[in-house]
Amino acid sequence: MDIRRRHVLGASVLGVGAGVGAGLLAPRDPAPAPAALPDTSGLNGARLEPFHARHQAGVETIPQAHALFIGIDLEEETTARRAVSMLRLLTDDAAALTQGRAPLADPEPELTPQPARLTVTFGFGERLVALAGRRHVPDWLRPLEEFTIDRLEPERSRGDLLLQICGDDALAVAHAARMLLKDARAFAAVAWSRTAFRRAYGSDPTGTTQRNMFGQVDGTANPGPGSEDFARLVWGESTGRADPVFSARGEPPLDLGADHPAWLREGGTTLVLRDIAMDMETWDEADRPAREFAVGRDLASGAPLTGTDEHDVPDLTAVDARGLTRISPASHVARSRNEAKPEEQIFRRVYNYHGVPEASTAGTGPSGSRRVSTAGLMFASYQADIGRQFLPIQRRLGGMDLLNQWTTPIGSTVWAIPPGIADGDYIGSRLFEG
Amino acid sequence: MDIRRRHVLGASVLGVGAGVGAGLLAPRDPAPAPAALPDTSGLNGARLEPFHARHQAGVETIPQAHALFIGIDLEEETTARRAVSMLRLLTDDAAALTQGRAPLADPEPELTPQPARLTVTFGFGERLVALAGRRHVPDWLRPLEEFTIDRLEPERSRGDLLLQICGDDALAVAHAARMLLKDARAFAAVAWSRTAFRRAYGSDPTGTTQRNMFGQVDGTANPGPGSEDFARLVWGESTGRADPVFSARGEPPLDLGADHPAWLREGGTTLVLRDIAMDMETWDEADRPAREFAVGRDLASGAPLTGTDEHDVPDLTAVDARGLTRISPASHVARSRNEAKPEEQIFRRVYNYHGVPEASTAGTGPSGSRRVSTAGLMFASYQADIGRQFLPIQRRLGGMDLLNQWTTPIGSTVWAIPPGIADGDYIGSRLFEG
Repeated sequence: MDIRRRHVLGASVLGVGAGVGAGLLAPRDPAPAPAALPDTSGLNGARLEPFHARHQAGVETIPQAHALFIGIDLEEETTARRAVSMLRLLTDDAAALTQGRAPLADPEPELTPQPARLTVTFGFGERLVALAGRRHVPDWLRPLEEFTIDRLEPERSRGDLLLQICGDDALAVAHAARMLLKDARAFAAVAWSRTAFRRAYGSDPTGTTQRNMFGQVDGTANPGPGSEDFARLVWGESTGRADPVFSARGEPPLDLGADHPAWLREGGTTLVLRDIAMDMETWDEADRPAREFAVGRDLASGAPLTGTDEHDVPDLTAVDARGLTRISPASHVARSRNEAKPEEQIFRRVYNYHGVPEASTAGTGPSGSRRVSTAGLMFASYQADIGRQFLPIQRRLGGMDLLNQWTTPIGSTVWAIPPGIADGDYIGSRLFEG
Repeated sequence: MDIRRRHVLGASVLGVGAGVGAGLLAPRDPAPAPAALPDTSGLNGARLEPFHARHQAGVETIPQAHALFIGIDLEEETTARRAVSMLRLLTDDAAALTQGRAPLADPEPELTPQPARLTVTFGFGERLVALAGRRHVPDWLRPLEEFTIDRLEPERSRGDLLLQICGDDALAVAHAARMLLKDARAFAAVAWSRTAFRRAYGSDPTGTTQRNMFGQVDGTANPGPGSEDFARLVWGESTGRADPVFSARGEPPLDLGADHPAWLREGGTTLVLRDIAMDMETWDEADRPAREFAVGRDLASGAPLTGTDEHDVPDLTAVDARGLTRISPASHVARSRNEAKPEEQIFRRVYNYHGVPEASTAGTGPSGSRRVSTAGLMFASYQADIGRQFLPIQRRLGGMDLLNQWTTPIGSTVWAIPPGIADGDYIGSRLFEG
């Protein structure tokens, strides 16, 4: 009720009321199934995500409430054989923990029941892939080109192995991290980590788009898990089902090209992980019209400024009475879309972070007031092909995006996400033994 | 099922199987209502905790999944008048945010719906009370005496105002913190903060005792919210209902004594907040019998070593075949209890914290392995009378408690928790205007 009231207010302030009629006829972005009450029968803690499957969990999995991202450096002297030992150990841990069982030598087995949809997703960096020896390291598995907006901290922009630990229960996530890191530490050391969150399980109707610390809906145009779009854009596969984006345009399946090695095909994907600091102080000083102009969307409803519903497709050509486009061509929405190239789409699985700095370290915002928070977004972008899907979007946004005035990328890493495995196998086996 | 199996294993390892028969007849600690499925109908996000009430929310409130504790220093030049302005502002913010409404000038109103049982509990330190002028500052409202186990960090052991922000949704908690701190910063600065957690809403059956990062159940002997015990021990009041602890012994109501000022009576209480670092490395090296000997409880079930159920009353006199007490007199359970003085009880509303240190700052544990976590407990102890309830327990535990070998208090603060208020009033009005 509150949301609805503010939406109406927002619309009238912006003078987009005239768009209501037109918006009803506008095409819609592919969206997840209509919002519904989440399944809250029984205990949330008892819910499991399968570990042994074609794909690793934690990608197509409906995003859990908590995520702990950990970048890990392998010890200098690591051999392929040592790497395999570590991956076997960590795979066994993840297989047990995610299913609510205590792994071997778990010193706190009391913390393993109630995994609450715990998932552990492994990402491989350039060096870990190179360790496997016989293979070509893909060109895209290296640091992204530098963007002028970047202020990357070297310690947040490296790592040979990524652990993305997600779950709906913070205690289960913390325990899983401890167990995995205890088994990894003979081989490797933590480079960086981020504890991050979204809405709690059951806070919102299923299918509600996440909001970030700016209050923005974040992930509206995402392909829906389980859809043909998702299969093509993230896994480089086809389900053979109808496809709102590709079929409508008669596009051929996404061809992954020669730079996608066999060990990654048939179940793997890629991840670009950007740690984006958000300047809450300057954002809070911007008024709503300025923010909505920058984003290109109504903040309350998430609808494009040319529509009335979050999933209306933005009309980038619509003009107002003065002949100006209703959505600025410099806005985030306009810069991130390329209607001519439907393959320029990514799957965003983003998480917020927030901390309260002590006064002595907080610094001041532009008005001279002490900063009261450190906030940001772990922007996790999954796509089959970084070069054709992620980079064109990132280049447009890095070159010009009104939202950039409030955001600063401070960490950036690129990961190969190996396929899922069968029981008894270990994550990365096709790389090391294929 | 997993828990049950491990419980049986744990019991047989410890040889407490012989206690099973006796345990069934043992008296039981007062416990919350029998475990039941939590109410997960509708959206968890829509659940509200009342703000305007006799008591502040966040004390008797069933503990939420997340807590953000923030210690705040008032500016040097703060006057009583300024303090009241701040308290009015923060009260209005809390009254709105906890009910899912955007406070005045909330720059991110999109983040206020779905408060998910958000509560804001205000605690007053010595200096804020002294500011009110005309009144005597209670003797107990000062740093606790030093305990030999303490390694207090000065910056974690101070503050004039406490904000304890709790809720089942991390995004709602983060937004509330930002809003409150933005309104507080003209008057005050953040001294310290801790982001902490328990199991997610709906992970466990209602009434399940929280587990800390050691895997221990933590809070078994707590008076149940809504009970006569709770009213007496925490609020210094009587509900007039039957009372498992006091009535059974014919005890008179707890007399709060002269050092409890009028502004705190009829709805207020006190809080001792201890930030306790937990050494996971050495704990993980201790085997289960050693841990259970130190705690005095079976780790899996939480039952005292003389019982079979978590809520069995520990039998501190029971001896084994060798004539040794089955529960060590140096164990945590034995040291924390005083059967002769039922008023030596507190209400613990504790939260875990956990972080992943980078390798460069992690240090090593006793075995030389790199530490993989910083973990601890925000030990929030509510009681009507610190001198008669909290201190005797703390003195016993501080003097000798086998659990101390793995725990180190690094922060310690004491707070007056003023009564709740009616609509239109502000937290602390009876102190400043009474």
